[in-house]
Amino acid sequence: MYTIGIDIGSVATKVAIFDGKDIIATDITPTGWSPKDSASLLINKVLESSKISKEEVKSITATGYGRVSLPFATKKVTEITSHAKGAHFIDSSIRTIIDIGGQDSKVIKIDNNGNVVDFLMNDKCAAGTGRFLQVMSQILETDISDLSTLASEAEPENINSMCTVFAESEVVSLIASGKSKESIAAGLLNSVAKKTYALVSKVKVEDKVFFSGGVSKNYLLRKFLSERLNIDINSSDKSQFLGAIGACIIGYEM
Amino acid sequence: MYTIGIDIGSVATKVAIFDGKDIIATDITPTGWSPKDSASLLINKVLESSKISKEEVKSITATGYGRVSLPFATKKVTEITSHAKGAHFIDSSIRTIIDIGGQDSKVIKIDNNGNVVDFLMNDKCAAGTGRFLQVMSQILETDISDLSTLASEAEPENINSMCTVFAESEVVSLIASGKSKESIAAGLLNSVAKKTYALVSKVKVEDKVFFSGGVSKNYLLRKFLSERLNIDINSSDKSQFLGAIGACIIGYEM
Ligand code: SF4
Repeated sequence: MYTIGIDIGSVATKVAIFDGKDIIATDITPTGWSPKDSASLLINKVLESSKISKEEVKSITATGYGRVSLPFATKKVTEITSHAKGAHFIDSSIRTIIDIGGQDSKVIKIDNNGNVVDFLMNDKCAAGTGRFLQVMSQILETDISDLSTLASEAEPENINSMCTVFAESEVVSLIASGKSKESIAAGLLNSVAKKTYALVSKVKVEDKVFFSGGVSKNYLLRKFLSERLNIDINSSDKSQFLGAIGACIIGYEM
Repeated sequence: MYTIGIDIGSVATKVAIFDGKDIIATDITPTGWSPKDSASLLINKVLESSKISKEEVKSITATGYGRVSLPFATKKVTEITSHAKGAHFIDSSIRTIIDIGGQDSKVIKIDNNGNVVDFLMNDKCAAGTGRFLQVMSQILETDISDLSTLASEAEPENINSMCTVFAESEVVSLIASGKSKESIAAGLLNSVAKKTYALVSKVKVEDKVFFSGGVSKNYLLRKFLSERLNIDINSSDKSQFLGAIGACIIGYEM
C-alpha cells in the first residue's frame, strides 16, 4: 500500500509517494489557474510513471494554500505540520526550517521528535518571497532560476527599499545609471536574504538549519542568508518537496 | 518682504509665498527627475505670476524628501514640522493631520500652539500611499484623479491583500471575472482607507482632523476613512500645500 502527499503552493504543486519506508517518487508542476486540475493531473502522472494503480493508494493528504480546493483529499494538513514532518523524515537532526515559497516565507522550529515548537510566517508582504524575485527577474529580463548564476561573481548593488514596489523603481534607476545586471541580481538576492533574516532572527535559530521552498534553489541567496545568520544552512534536491513528503507520511501514520 | 516655502515630494513639488500675514500664492509641479530643477523653475514661475522680484524674497525654506538636494535653500525643515506649522496656520483648531503623499503616509498630532505632540509615518510600504493607487489606476486604465468619481456610486469590491503586489493580482482576477471598474475602484479606495486606519488608529485621533497630501483629493477615500474612524475629516483646496505653507511661515518667523 502507498500513500500520496500533495502540496499545492501558489506557484507550484508538488507530489510525493510513500511506501511505508521510503519516498519512492516525487514530481512537480505549475499550479496554474486550477489547483484541483493541476493536482489531479500530477497525481495521475506520478502514479503512471511509478506503475502504481489507484487501488494501491491508501490515502491522499493535501497541504499548501490550495488544499482547500481539493475534494478528493483524504485529509488536509497545514503547511507547518507537513513541513515539520517532512524535514524530520529526511534528516532527524533538523531543528530549524526556513521555507521561502512563491508568495510566502516562514520559519519553523522542531524538536528531536519532529514536533513544531515555534513558527513564524509572512504571507502578507511580497518582499522576501518568490514573488519579489519574479517581479525583479522580469525587469532584469532574466529567468528567476538563473539569478544565482548571473549574480555569482558580482559585488551586490545596494537596494535600499525592502518594498517590492519601491525596489522596482530602484532597480529601474540602477539599470538606467548603467549598473550591471549581475550586480543588481546579486543585490536583489541580498535583499531577500535581508528580509528573510528579519523574519528568521525573531526565533532562536538552532542547528541544523534546512532551507526549503522553490526559492531555496538560489544557492547565492542561501550563501547570503547563511552569512547573515552566521550558521550553516543545508538544502537538498528534495527541498521543494518537504511539504508533500510530510503529507504522505502523515497519511501513512493515520 | 516675502518668504517662500517649497515642499519637494516624491511626486509633486509645491510652493507657497507668505507676506507676513497671508499666503499670497501657491503653485504645484511634478517633481520629475531633478528635484532641484523642478523647484527652481517652480519658484521662478510663482514669483513671476505674483510679480515679486527675487530681491524681495527674504528666505526660501525647503521641506519634503527632496529638500536635501536644494543648494539654494536658506533653511531646511522636516515634513513633520512644516505640516504642523501649515495646519496650525490655516486652522488653529486642527489637532490631527493625516497626510497621504505619493510614497508615504503619516499622522501628526499637534497642540493648540501648533507644536507636534506625536507622529507616526509609513515610508517603507507602498500600500496605503499614492503609489498604491497609481499602480492600480494603471491596471484599471483610468487616471488616479478620476478614481473617486468613477467609484462614487459603486459597492466596493473586497480586496483581501493589503500588499500592492498581491492586490495587483487580485485586481487582475476581479477584472477577468467581470467585476466592474467602478466597484474595483471603490474597493481600492477602501483598501487605502483600511491601511491608513491601521496607521492612524495607533495614535489617539482628536478633533479637528485635517486630511492633506495629494491623495486627500480623493473624496471617497476621505469618506471611507471618516467612517472607519467615526470622526469628521476636513480638507480644503489648500490641502496639498500644507508643507509649503508651513515652510514659508517658518522662514518668516526666523
Ligand atoms: S512593503 Fe511592498 S511588498 Fe511589502 S506589503 Fe507593502 S507594498 Fe507589499
